[in-house]
Amino acid sequence: MTAIDKRTHERKFVRTFFTTPTAVEGEDDSAKMLKKSIQLRGMQAPDVWVPDNEDATAPNMRDEGAQNIIDVVSADGADFPGEIHPRVVWHRDSPTTRYQGFQRMLEMADPDNGAIENIDGFVIPEVGDVDDWKKADEFFTIIENEHGLEEGSLKMSVIIESGAAELAMSKLRDEMGKPTNNLQRMFLLVDGEVDYTKDMRAITPTGGLPAWPELRHNTSRGASANGLIAVDGPYDDIRDVEGYHERMTENQAKGQLGIWSLTPGQVVEANKSPLPPEEGYWIIDADGRTVELESQDGVEVYSGERIELEEEGDGYELEVGGDEYELTEDELTEELLDLLDYVPSLNDIVDSMEEFEAAKEAGKGAIAMTQSATVSIDGVEVDVAKDRMWDEATYQALQTPITLFQDVYENRPDQHDDLADLYGEDVVDRAMDVGN
Amino acid sequence: MTAIDKRTHERKFVRTFFTTPTAVEGEDDSAKMLKKSIQLRGMQAPDVWVPDNEDATAPNMRDEGAQNIIDVVSADGADFPGEIHPRVVWHRDSPTTRYQGFQRMLEMADPDNGAIENIDGFVIPEVGDVDDWKKADEFFTIIENEHGLEEGSLKMSVIIESGAAELAMSKLRDEMGKPTNNLQRMFLLVDGEVDYTKDMRAITPTGGLPAWPELRHNTSRGASANGLIAVDGPYDDIRDVEGYHERMTENQAKGQLGIWSLTPGQVVEANKSPLPPEEGYWIIDADGRTVELESQDGVEVYSGERIELEEEGDGYELEVGGDEYELTEDELTEELLDLLDYVPSLNDIVDSMEEFEAAKEAGKGAIAMTQSATVSIDGVEVDVAKDRMWDEATYQALQTPITLFQDVYENRPDQHDDLADLYGEDVVDRAMDVGN
Amino acid sequence: MTAIDKRTHERKFVRTFFTTPTAVEGEDDSAKMLKKSIQLRGMQAPDVWVPDNEDATAPNMRDEGAQNIIDVVSADGADFPGEIHPRVVWHRDSPTTRYQGFQRMLEMADPDNGAIENIDGFVIPEVGDVDDWKKADEFFTIIENEHGLEEGSLKMSVIIESGAAELAMSKLRDEMGKPTNNLQRMFLLVDGEVDYTKDMRAITPTGGLPAWPELRHNTSRGASANGLIAVDGPYDDIRDVEGYHERMTENQAKGQLGIWSLTPGQVVEANKSPLPPEEGYWIIDADGRTVELESQDGVEVYSGERIELEEEGDGYELEVGGDEYELTEDELTEELLDLLDYVPSLNDIVDSMEEFEAAKEAGKGAIAMTQSATVSIDGVEVDVAKDRMWDEATYQALQTPITLFQDVYENRPDQHDDLADLYGEDVVDRAMDVGN
Repeated sequence: MTAIDKRTHERKFVRTFFTTPTAVEGEDDSAKMLKKSIQLRGMQAPDVWVPDNEDATAPNMRDEGAQNIIDVVSADGADFPGEIHPRVVWHRDSPTTRYQGFQRMLEMADPDNGAIENIDGFVIPEVGDVDDWKKADEFFTIIENEHGLEEGSLKMSVIIESGAAELAMSKLRDEMGKPTNNLQRMFLLVDGEVDYTKDMRAITPTGGLPAWPELRHNTSRGASANGLIAVDGPYDDIRDVEGYHERMTENQAKGQLGIWSLTPGQVVEANKSPLPPEEGYWIIDADGRTVELESQDGVEVYSGERIELEEEGDGYELEVGGDEYELTEDELTEELLDLLDYVPSLNDIVDSMEEFEAAKEAGKGAIAMTQSATVSIDGVEVDVAKDRMWDEATYQALQTPITLFQDVYENRPDQHDDLADLYGEDVVDRAMDVGN
Repeated sequence: MTAIDKRTHERKFVRTFFTTPTAVEGEDDSAKMLKKSIQLRGMQAPDVWVPDNEDATAPNMRDEGAQNIIDVVSADGADFPGEIHPRVVWHRDSPTTRYQGFQRMLEMADPDNGAIENIDGFVIPEVGDVDDWKKADEFFTIIENEHGLEEGSLKMSVIIESGAAELAMSKLRDEMGKPTNNLQRMFLLVDGEVDYTKDMRAITPTGGLPAWPELRHNTSRGASANGLIAVDGPYDDIRDVEGYHERMTENQAKGQLGIWSLTPGQVVEANKSPLPPEEGYWIIDADGRTVELESQDGVEVYSGERIELEEEGDGYELEVGGDEYELTEDELTEELLDLLDYVPSLNDIVDSMEEFEAAKEAGKGAIAMTQSATVSIDGVEVDVAKDRMWDEATYQALQTPITLFQDVYENRPDQHDDLADLYGEDVVDRAMDVGN
Repeated sequence: MTAIDKRTHERKFVRTFFTTPTAVEGEDDSAKMLKKSIQLRGMQAPDVWVPDNEDATAPNMRDEGAQNIIDVVSADGADFPGEIHPRVVWHRDSPTTRYQGFQRMLEMADPDNGAIENIDGFVIPEVGDVDDWKKADEFFTIIENEHGLEEGSLKMSVIIESGAAELAMSKLRDEMGKPTNNLQRMFLLVDGEVDYTKDMRAITPTGGLPAWPELRHNTSRGASANGLIAVDGPYDDIRDVEGYHERMTENQAKGQLGIWSLTPGQVVEANKSPLPPEEGYWIIDADGRTVELESQDGVEVYSGERIELEEEGDGYELEVGGDEYELTEDELTEELLDLLDYVPSLNDIVDSMEEFEAAKEAGKGAIAMTQSATVSIDGVEVDVAKDRMWDEATYQALQTPITLFQDVYENRPDQHDDLADLYGEDVVDRAMDVGN
């Protein structure tokens, strides 16, 4: 028997949750967007594709949208490289809405309609506490039973967009596995910050969404404790690629490795974001702002104005954000080591893991990994070397990007070419080999 | 039947929780402060007034204080524009204290004393886990029964000032509605950071209170999940109006829209804080500090030193916090759009909502709202336009300040003049009309 | 009967949790490190010493390690000034590991082996939800029963290194005290961020550990709600003393007053960190960075570049981080008061408490405490005075460092000399006297 907090589905990681309106009014073919999305391949194709028969589709178009899902998925679903999880309507406060959602799922799941073999599950929005989750689960069970599908085979994902749902995530573990439900079908916990903001009645001066760091922590923790996968909500400002990346970096530090994407462009960014970079690089803390150094002929160059360095007699004068320090060479190295950090490439990570594995084989429990560089600030060059002790726990904690990489590689053959282009065949092969 | 997480009381919002000592020694009239507070009107009068027979009143004066509450509220309570919720003594670790609190509530609630018809509920401090809350609730029920009041008619608010009480907020929803309690009487969840800091045994170098962001998040979430209202604790530094505003802005982004006030001056600030401003204005992120632009003849002017801009040949040189960028006009506009944001006035919000409602009426599900300005930095003028897509979910999430405004207007006729002075009659009328 | 959330063990505070490998391969004596650690005294000796028979010791050395613990503790444990809590292997996902841990505890606890009278409890890593905690507790009970020890006499501490364990801390209070367990034996809640990061599957660009502020809050809250003591995990970068101090200051503001130490040097820092400083000093917020002023002949001098001040005619020009303000003398004082703060010494705190106690004796419920200074910036001197109202609640919240000091003094006679050297005999005596 598998423990609850092991990820129990095929995909151990989901980077991208891409929604598409299911029926658009005024087009000659209301299913046009669905038909376009289902053709996506490679980095443009999400890990989870969500034909969105809820908020993205106008209420009066949703019956048509449900039929469009059936038509499009039955025609082309078999070739889609990601999982397919339509979102249906649902609301903790409205039995009418819940029954509508049930009816549409029942229809989409009917084997006679030919779509269900390519549908992996459904996404349920607007859940409240865990008893709501059970209501939805019960409909899944009934649908499976009616259509002769294996009990528990349809995955259920929920949108966390209320305080009650946030609390439910900390109760789920106590409910999952009871004989009266099939909550083991749970798959994704997806934050929905727009409606969550409404539910929490938050106000910001500009009307922008609050960052909700505690919600995202709790979602990631809920995923961890229940063997599920945490996904962040939509990032509205589609032009702001830099902002999208910052948000993903923040999320990754919380263990929330997936994010909603609204466009194929966002899918590309989000598919790549949790993967290690192609080239390693140095960063420096420039008075509170992290700045990437530029590698020039083997020297790492800082060319901003926030840090200044000059030689003064025997020593150095370092200025950071208006504060001056007179330093000896050793003190300077020490000070720079505090400010500098190295971002390893996929190749670097694989190297370190291989090195640690070899050391372990040879009976050593811990080894020091060193990263050296020559850093240049205002033309002054300084040699630095950063050490890090690796033991078994470090090794395992740092393995996450590799495990993710391996999960992607195994489940997304359509991305093999992109990965080989990005990292080179050799690095990809070694990355698939390490850590097993 | 109303769902638990709908706010079930008349007031859907509470901006201000104003405490007054109930008996001050050494005055010729120990009830002097109560008598002064109960005369407050308009923006100086709080949404919830709390004659504080606990910490604000010396232990040896509390019997007299309870009598003062009865005298003052029976005389002038009918005309007070806010709700009246005395705070009594109570402690999770002391049955003696709890019994004292019970006896004083029993006395204050006695219809023969003439105060109870103007008392809306009581505030219970120092609760622990949810079983403590039930003990307090049980005394309310006994008091209601003894005095022939409707069961559940006295509202109960609690001060969250222990780790156990913080945890209780996430269990309340499982307990409320059970036949053995009347916890539906719950009204406010009020953070008490001084005693919470003691209970958590936190230490800061200066002795200042920690910010406790997680507590405030959890209080707001507890309110959301149980249909209650979240209120932050006292802000000690009465002179520091700017700091009080910053705290309220932070709280509002968490959905904690109410705050404790220690003086009528703080009440004014806190009553106004969650209401949208009279005039909209632009802000800019000046190297990590948010600065308001000054509107001069239709141009929005930044006059600080943290951002510098000059024309250079065909392009521009922009300097932010010591970092320089060479930009074309398009790049400059793009860069500034990332830094700029607009804070809408009440009028702006009403405009946008009316516009969205009209679009919806015309069958459109989403529209773009644009905010344009000419911005001037170091004499260089740049035209910018910020777009935002509004759909039903955006509309509802941004509706909170309007719903709050409407709640205030309906429940606080004594503030009608202030609101008309602030916004103009016309805007007030339109704000009352929108969103229904 | 004591309430659950009173700290129920002898030590009310634990500043330091110091781990030592139990058996090191390749040494002539594998117990060498244990033998060295058990000789530590004074500030180098931790409040809790943890012979670490889990991650710090290679798997193949752990049987030998268990025997080493028995040998070393039975020989020299009686003289060790702190508590002794060996860590054994344990894992929520592995019954094999759990049974190994049980067998080793059973052996170490055997009175015939002579170590148990100096062992205060055991540390259990890798627990999951509260049912796991009960499994561990049950083994403690069996061990106590087998060896004729008093039921509940062995303390149990756990490492929080999974999302499930984080959630368990909010459920513990509902389970502790049930007749089927002895969870009242619980002592420390210790964060283990390396394995927690793995369990949460978090990724950071540099491979550094995320800060996990919510986890640390929740651990502190769990301690508060259950009468336990919260301890933060290891700080890997042993050379970075400043970073270790910053982490401890952050933790203390959360109520997490203890921290893991990996070296006797870290033990010294961590033993001293939560104690008030020997001398009080002023700090200033220099554009977002907190800077300590230097006391020179009774004047507090700021000598950085982030704040500039000069007299201009009648008034002053103040520049903070590039923003200029023209101010009158009163405005300047006001502005500086917002930026300045005072960090009281142990002596200062004792003074204030004595003063408040005398006022209370005289029947006053609240008094203002004033801290004055002459501050010099760019040679311009300004007199400032900071007021703070103290009432009973303030007094109690600010008492934590004193209570901690008293707990240390009572339980650690080996540190008396260090404390007297640091503060002077007189201050120590008065600190032991205040607040009782």
